[in-house]
Amino acid sequence: MILLDGKSLSKKIKSTLSKKVEKIVSLNYRAPHLVAILVGSNPASQTYVSAKEKACDEIGFNSSVIRLDENISQENLINKILEINLNNNIDGLIVQLPLPKHIDEYSIIESISIEKDVDGFHPMSLGKMVIGEPCFLPATQYGIITLIEENKIETNGKNCLVIGRSNIVGRPISILMSRNSKFANATVTLAHSRTKNIENLTKEADIIIVALGKANFLNKDMVKEGVVIIDVGTTRIKSNKTKSGWRVVGDVAFESVKQKSSYITPVPGGVGPMTIVSLLKNTMLSYERKNNLNL
Amino acid sequence: MILLDGKSLSKKIKSTLSKKVEKIVSLNYRAPHLVAILVGSNPASQTYVSAKEKACDEIGFNSSVIRLDENISQENLINKILEINLNNNIDGLIVQLPLPKHIDEYSIIESISIEKDVDGFHPMSLGKMVIGEPCFLPATQYGIITLIEENKIETNGKNCLVIGRSNIVGRPISILMSRNSKFANATVTLAHSRTKNIENLTKEADIIIVALGKANFLNKDMVKEGVVIIDVGTTRIKSNKTKSGWRVVGDVAFESVKQKSSYITPVPGGVGPMTIVSLLKNTMLSYERKNNLNL
Repeated sequence: MILLDGKSLSKKIKSTLSKKVEKIVSLNYRAPHLVAILVGSNPASQTYVSAKEKACDEIGFNSSVIRLDENISQENLINKILEINLNNNIDGLIVQLPLPKHIDEYSIIESISIEKDVDGFHPMSLGKMVIGEPCFLPATQYGIITLIEENKIETNGKNCLVIGRSNIVGRPISILMSRNSKFANATVTLAHSRTKNIENLTKEADIIIVALGKANFLNKDMVKEGVVIIDVGTTRIKSNKTKSGWRVVGDVAFESVKQKSSYITPVPGGVGPMTIVSLLKNTMLSYERKNNLNL
Repeated sequence: MILLDGKSLSKKIKSTLSKKVEKIVSLNYRAPHLVAILVGSNPASQTYVSAKEKACDEIGFNSSVIRLDENISQENLINKILEINLNNNIDGLIVQLPLPKHIDEYSIIESISIEKDVDGFHPMSLGKMVIGEPCFLPATQYGIITLIEENKIETNGKNCLVIGRSNIVGRPISILMSRNSKFANATVTLAHSRTKNIENLTKEADIIIVALGKANFLNKDMVKEGVVIIDVGTTRIKSNKTKSGWRVVGDVAFESVKQKSSYITPVPGGVGPMTIVSLLKNTMLSYERKNNLNL
């Protein structure tokens, strides 16, 4: 069993990015700049945004967090986004979700310039991804693909089961895994809440990507020997072993499944850190495109 | 076995559209208008465009075909498209593919206004489809979904196998069949050239959608009793039974497979006529949206 260690891979990638930033700055250019918009005071959103800010600091990116009152009107939020779209000193813009209920998330995402859509959630980015045109890959999916590539996992012609059809995880990764590309080319099945007899599918799968949000859903009796497991789920459960009284677990019963796996991501420390680092990679890509650099 | 008769269903839909046009015209509005751009003199393209023109005529739509020399520059072609985008008397624009090799098809499709993209090939239309936002569904896929809906075929939780991952057929229909929607909600597997042991998959499938372009690829030994078959393939083969010396066959060995099917599309007369009528439906939808009508 090989652990797909997102924590250590993301460190490696951050170090490469950091060296690029050093080079950029030494040439007297400005550093890449990622902006996050945070509306309201959702504690989980604050944690995510802080983690992104910290990651930017670590590698020398400029980062700004624009904190807006949770009563902001949709129009004013869009105006703020349009202002950032036009600001040539900003390379990437993310709007932390979820947004307050009076704001239509789709309208917000659609108003982000696709040149700065480093989250890859804009429909134009997704459409380009579907047809294989250059685009910002959504950060979680980009992270998964990078884990697969860096570990040289064979995916060509393999049966890949994606569990969960959300727009932000399951569906995009199902599309990417079946692309005609070296670390893709899998025969992909997308399972979801209406799927019957999921065990029949999990037992046949060479690669399973789970994004359900159901703690410990996948156990060892459901998988075959040698399976590759990518666990995107995160659920907070009570724990008397941590200071906070909580710990985060994935959709996979890790201790049980790891024995049968050839590769497996831990939770935490698997896909999570890869998501943040992919956001940084997209921001660097945006910077390089805008300035016609290839560092 | 029930024949999924696209020819007769498309006639029914055309008759409904025709009545709408009569009503529109009786209210002294202009009729919906579909424009096709045809570059060069590819015989198959000419046939397709003529069929679309004829279908428009039948139901009272205005239609124009803009025939352009095959040496036209990409820039001039895009300028023509931008002109049509701005013309308020035109509701739908299709650019017949393939285009001459010196023209980048993606750039052409991207230059079509998404409000007039009745083919549904624009990346923005595809992206909206992925996340379930209102959009023009690509015509072939829309036609398949309509065949399923009108025949009230149960798809919920069924195993649906899509064979072929092209951007214009296989991939979009795989996305649509797994949507959370009444005549979708299937567990979809997308198979392609790298898929191993395709027979294992075809034998397990409740619904098979084939879009390979390999004459008579799917035979009765590959499918299970009661399967639903949607055949999108068309291949011209020599025949001494037709005046032209050619006939069109699908990807499914129809005579052999029909015995085991619960529903099956013939070729020709299945998906083909549904594609054209879906283009007309999209054009009507564009007209209604633009004029705030709901007829």
